[in-house]
Amino acid sequence: MSAHINFLVLAGGAGTRFWPLSRRSNPKQCLELYGSKTMMEQTIDRIKHQSSKAQRYLVYGDHLRHQFESSDALSIVEPSARNTAPAIALGALIADHFDEGSAIAVLPSDHFVGENEAFSSDIILAAELALTGMIVTIGIPPTRPETGFGYIKKGVKIDKGFTVEAFVEKPDFKTASQYLMQGNYVWNAGMFVFTYATLIHEIASQLPKMAAGLSIIKTALVEDPAKSWTDVSEHVLETIKTEFQNFEATSIDFGVMENAENIAVLPASFPWSDLGHWAAMSEVLDPDENQNINHRKSGETFFYNASDNVVSISSDRFVALVGVKNMVLVESEDAILLISKSKCQDVREVVAHLKKTNPNLI
Amino acid sequence: MSAHINFLVLAGGAGTRFWPLSRRSNPKQCLELYGSKTMMEQTIDRIKHQSSKAQRYLVYGDHLRHQFESSDALSIVEPSARNTAPAIALGALIADHFDEGSAIAVLPSDHFVGENEAFSSDIILAAELALTGMIVTIGIPPTRPETGFGYIKKGVKIDKGFTVEAFVEKPDFKTASQYLMQGNYVWNAGMFVFTYATLIHEIASQLPKMAAGLSIIKTALVEDPAKSWTDVSEHVLETIKTEFQNFEATSIDFGVMENAENIAVLPASFPWSDLGHWAAMSEVLDPDENQNINHRKSGETFFYNASDNVVSISSDRFVALVGVKNMVLVESEDAILLISKSKCQDVREVVAHLKKTNPNLI
Repeated sequence: MSAHINFLVLAGGAGTRFWPLSRRSNPKQCLELYGSKTMMEQTIDRIKHQSSKAQRYLVYGDHLRHQFESSDALSIVEPSARNTAPAIALGALIADHFDEGSAIAVLPSDHFVGENEAFSSDIILAAELALTGMIVTIGIPPTRPETGFGYIKKGVKIDKGFTVEAFVEKPDFKTASQYLMQGNYVWNAGMFVFTYATLIHEIASQLPKMAAGLSIIKTALVEDPAKSWTDVSEHVLETIKTEFQNFEATSIDFGVMENAENIAVLPASFPWSDLGHWAAMSEVLDPDENQNINHRKSGETFFYNASDNVVSISSDRFVALVGVKNMVLVESEDAILLISKSKCQDVREVVAHLKKTNPNLI
Repeated sequence: MSAHINFLVLAGGAGTRFWPLSRRSNPKQCLELYGSKTMMEQTIDRIKHQSSKAQRYLVYGDHLRHQFESSDALSIVEPSARNTAPAIALGALIADHFDEGSAIAVLPSDHFVGENEAFSSDIILAAELALTGMIVTIGIPPTRPETGFGYIKKGVKIDKGFTVEAFVEKPDFKTASQYLMQGNYVWNAGMFVFTYATLIHEIASQLPKMAAGLSIIKTALVEDPAKSWTDVSEHVLETIKTEFQNFEATSIDFGVMENAENIAVLPASFPWSDLGHWAAMSEVLDPDENQNINHRKSGETFFYNASDNVVSISSDRFVALVGVKNMVLVESEDAILLISKSKCQDVREVVAHLKKTNPNLI
């Protein structure tokens, strides 16, 4: 069986952490970091059998129109970047309007999912729970004391999951280690399933300006004869543009989830990685016998006395690594990055430098 | 004053240690590793004021003809590669034939010399000593316990230098440290000054086949009307080709120097580096405040939390090094090399691999 689900894929991420491969106009979700499809294409493939094209929405900013206009999903272009809560609320309103009462699954577009069937089963479980009036987050059971993610503290067991006792900000290492040992915390991976009715109830009490704007947009949609999102009139789009700029610019976690009633968490049963930086490539690609990751379509990489490195080469030129360990070497058409694995977060320092000196490269 | 000197520049070195910049057809001496001229051009510049073009000879193999044919020196193309003794003996015979009795200075073409005036003064001193019948080597006072060079043990002080007590093979680290402390050892840098009369005396006693061949070539030269090396007849060239292949294929050190009588060493008064590998670039180029060497003509290299690295980039693309230390990163048109500074000798393993798999790249 399959629950009645609409998918809202957040596709607007900038993803500078995969610079120089990722760029403002070609962010992480548009890269083929594993497999022969982009992460966005893989995300869509993963939900295709659970939805028609009219039930799949991508939400993103205008600068990414060239990337997704012809994808196998409908596009909702944000009038401006106002964080995740406005984007999700608008998307949920639209999805619900054209498929009333359905479960709406919010998904990132740039995460790795290891087993699509397990993912689909979890989505179905979450949707069933969502249709009972819960906001359901899918949490990732932690495998390391990660300090880069928010955590969700599980409460009591309920049918198909747990209540949420608390959303917790990124912890320090000691706290993260405790969470890992205690076993009652999961990572917040930004995956939520709910009905619009449940969401608007929370928005009404927590984000009054957004609630008012959504109400005006809903009226415009109701008065519009369009039977699908692709056919709505200029008037609807103009109304969205006008109202959206008044929405509270906040994240879905902070603006809605942290204080929501009736919130549940379902521990994921699928392998997952947020692929948050270059070093994480070792979580999604098979290494050689010396734990080197070689990410390229053509050309040879020769490793000699080299171990635990990540290489990503866009050209077909010959590359040799000799006597090096824990290095990340990336070549794009117009840049080369050499960064130590443990410093991958500092790629943002390069991007910050380029913002001032050579913005064409970001 | 200036002694009467002919220069014999050994230009045939393969220099795979600067791969991927150095190639079989574009070896180290043809690279601009420091300054805006190739090492060969700088070598010629260094001796220009002490010689006419007719007194400067480059000795190399046929595969380098395209590199040196139009250089400001005369070319002696070796009929085949038979190590340094045959090349030097043939070159010395030719130089002496057209400028009889002169001092002949044998120089490498791919070493760094820091002060040209000091170098010229040393050459003059060595030439004066050579004209008294000595074979004079210019030795480099060691600055570290280097295990990659042969050493020369100084004997008693003589006018302008020392007698040579022994030529010593590459020592182990402990021995090299002792040499450094004792102070009576210098590095063998492959620079020799002698007259042909002195050299042929040694060859006659140590390398009989070479002596016989040289005698036949000398006869051909004497019978030839040419007043300069560039005008010799086909018969001379054919005679050289025939006789050269019978010369003992040995090095000048092993074949001649180690057992020579009347050999002297003059400690060099100029800064010197053999630039034996990529890490040595820090000996000849000015580092930034974090001891990074940036070898490129155009484009930016951005260092962030990076120290003691060597970067050589042929293109103008942007390069960033983040959080790395003691790395060598080299980009040529068709290859990228990442090697740790302490493993620079292992670039030969890359070349050996390519010899089997992709000889176009060496």
